[in-house]
Amino acid sequence: MTKLMIPGPTEVSPAVLEQLAKPIRHHYGPDFVALYFEVVEKLKTVFQTRADLFILAATSSAAMEIALSHAAQPGEKVLICRNGFFGERFTEMANYHELSVITVDSPYGQPVDPAAVKALLDKHPDIKAVALVHNESSTAVETGLKPILDLTRARGILSVVDAVSSLGGADVPTDGLGIDFCVSGSQKCLAAPAGLSFVSVSESAWQAIARRAKPVRSWYLNLENLRAYREKWQNWHPQGPNTAPVSLYLALNQALDELLAEGLPARFARQIRVRDAFRASMRAMGLGLFTDDSCASKTLTAVRMPAGIDGSVLLDRVLRRHDILLAGGIGPLASQLIRVGHMAWTASEDYLLPTIQALETELLAMGAAIQPGGADIFRAAFHI
Amino acid sequence: MTKLMIPGPTEVSPAVLEQLAKPIRHHYGPDFVALYFEVVEKLKTVFQTRADLFILAATSSAAMEIALSHAAQPGEKVLICRNGFFGERFTEMANYHELSVITVDSPYGQPVDPAAVKALLDKHPDIKAVALVHNESSTAVETGLKPILDLTRARGILSVVDAVSSLGGADVPTDGLGIDFCVSGSQKCLAAPAGLSFVSVSESAWQAIARRAKPVRSWYLNLENLRAYREKWQNWHPQGPNTAPVSLYLALNQALDELLAEGLPARFARQIRVRDAFRASMRAMGLGLFTDDSCASKTLTAVRMPAGIDGSVLLDRVLRRHDILLAGGIGPLASQLIRVGHMAWTASEDYLLPTIQALETELLAMGAAIQPGGADIFRAAFHI
Repeated sequence: MTKLMIPGPTEVSPAVLEQLAKPIRHHYGPDFVALYFEVVEKLKTVFQTRADLFILAATSSAAMEIALSHAAQPGEKVLICRNGFFGERFTEMANYHELSVITVDSPYGQPVDPAAVKALLDKHPDIKAVALVHNESSTAVETGLKPILDLTRARGILSVVDAVSSLGGADVPTDGLGIDFCVSGSQKCLAAPAGLSFVSVSESAWQAIARRAKPVRSWYLNLENLRAYREKWQNWHPQGPNTAPVSLYLALNQALDELLAEGLPARFARQIRVRDAFRASMRAMGLGLFTDDSCASKTLTAVRMPAGIDGSVLLDRVLRRHDILLAGGIGPLASQLIRVGHMAWTASEDYLLPTIQALETELLAMGAAIQPGGADIFRAAFHI
Repeated sequence: MTKLMIPGPTEVSPAVLEQLAKPIRHHYGPDFVALYFEVVEKLKTVFQTRADLFILAATSSAAMEIALSHAAQPGEKVLICRNGFFGERFTEMANYHELSVITVDSPYGQPVDPAAVKALLDKHPDIKAVALVHNESSTAVETGLKPILDLTRARGILSVVDAVSSLGGADVPTDGLGIDFCVSGSQKCLAAPAGLSFVSVSESAWQAIARRAKPVRSWYLNLENLRAYREKWQNWHPQGPNTAPVSLYLALNQALDELLAEGLPARFARQIRVRDAFRASMRAMGLGLFTDDSCASKTLTAVRMPAGIDGSVLLDRVLRRHDILLAGGIGPLASQLIRVGHMAWTASEDYLLPTIQALETELLAMGAAIQPGGADIFRAAFHI
């Protein structure tokens, strides 16, 4: 079976698959209500929040959209931080929602620059919200959240953080940082199947929503509607007015148990050790890294291809001959980069040693001037 | 394990669960593209359409909303046919989308009246779209589609049909009837897990969408956006811009294989035989049926409680002592009715005989003046 060494969906544990295969259960009544609130509580632990939190029967982009569309009204200004594909996605969404978009762009491979954010906030005091991607998986870059959230908090501006590919793998203290809308999904660092996504909603966010002239023009992706149904049906059908995909809830619940059994600090530390060991192994082989250490993602790594090596050919060989799926670069970087996911279940020797070995074998076979021995370096660095 | 004799989610086959439990696969690349188009083609066969069809990573209400929000623009008139809970849901959605809503109401337990629809269309020639629920599962009523769709087609008005609880169990010839937006979901008569929903989009519907002054104010539930991404990424990621929940696709694909192996005409005939046999068994026991034969749903049946019997107590006894879950009535009918789903996998003797037996046992124990022997009547009628 192909190993998924990509930045999501990730492999899940056998116990998660076992939950997924359980006979279908219904989405209301005491058993489901208990499951629902159990999952919400565990998610709040991972989000490090006591704020409101919703589970959407939709994938992560829906959670990005529900957050952004509630953070500002049509015609209002939002600042969108773009340093890759998902920042661009926020911009597309803002345009559909008729928000007035101001963007702060960083080059691919760089984090968002807080000074640039500050300059634009100073220039446009009527900006209502700032949206940014914590872990830009298109370039394997993590943006430090604190400096930017210090700016939004100080000005009373709402913040929308896409933590889709980092939450559960990197420390995202939603309440501690003052994130108003924190967004994530099931199929990345939580190591559950795709199909569910999450958004936390701060008290300030609710106050802003209450001040809107008109509700968000949506029923399915409408926080007030979800909240109203949750209150009305709390003891019977608390997920809102929709049919919860219970199979996915059961699988997610198991995945959350695994994460919480390891413990957040231990999980975060393991992710950092894996990242550092993987980066060390790539460097020892003579490969360049696309992202500087100062902003290197904890959940995936982008590796530069040596001269004369086409990344897409390498990926194809690694897949065909080793049954390991890696990701390519994005856009103009497509053949110059490969991206290796290391999230949760795959942030382990069992998955990374064969991956490193496959890269080494195929790069050598393709005539790249690399040093063998990356797997040993990984093992040594991982066990430091 | 509790038998789900409710109007969705339904039980699924062991083979469907087996697909659900397969290791996680990614949502792009040749294997997924093949799976995606295979599922779309099978769905089009079940929808009986050659029109466009989208699979949403969201539950059926999202498909209702995407249809309705694309059928008319804010401020434009829509006629919503209401004869139960899901007609009311269409009205809620229309209000969020700032449509000008005209409703034609039928009493609970009655189908939509085409004459009333005609009268309102005559009175309001500026109505842009008509929305109706084919199978109102809240009251077990099926509305005949042809008379109403003849009206919309003749006037060039768009039609939105909620076939969530009927498609795959009752004959819904989307193209034959001229349905512009036909909506369904995975967890009813298709006997797959909840989490995916579907909408077909006719050529007339696309033309109306192209004439809009502004796009629908959504990114995730936006047909033009989904289509644009499908075209751009067709050979790699054709489901649109989102992460498809591949586990649910695999399960759905298996469920569709089972439906198509039986064949649509055979499946529809079985559903009718089951319904008729179940209604005969209830009548033979002396129980009343909420829905007249002329509009009886093929996929669930609502049974009146005899004098002195509280339906919610009966449901509780059937669940606790027989491990069979039935549904109650809706709103004011809560304790006067029970609703029994018989869809796909559960439209069979294996599920209905124990259900009838449980009802008989508990009704007798509760002192209801009923005739025993319902299971024999079902068996005899089912095998006619």
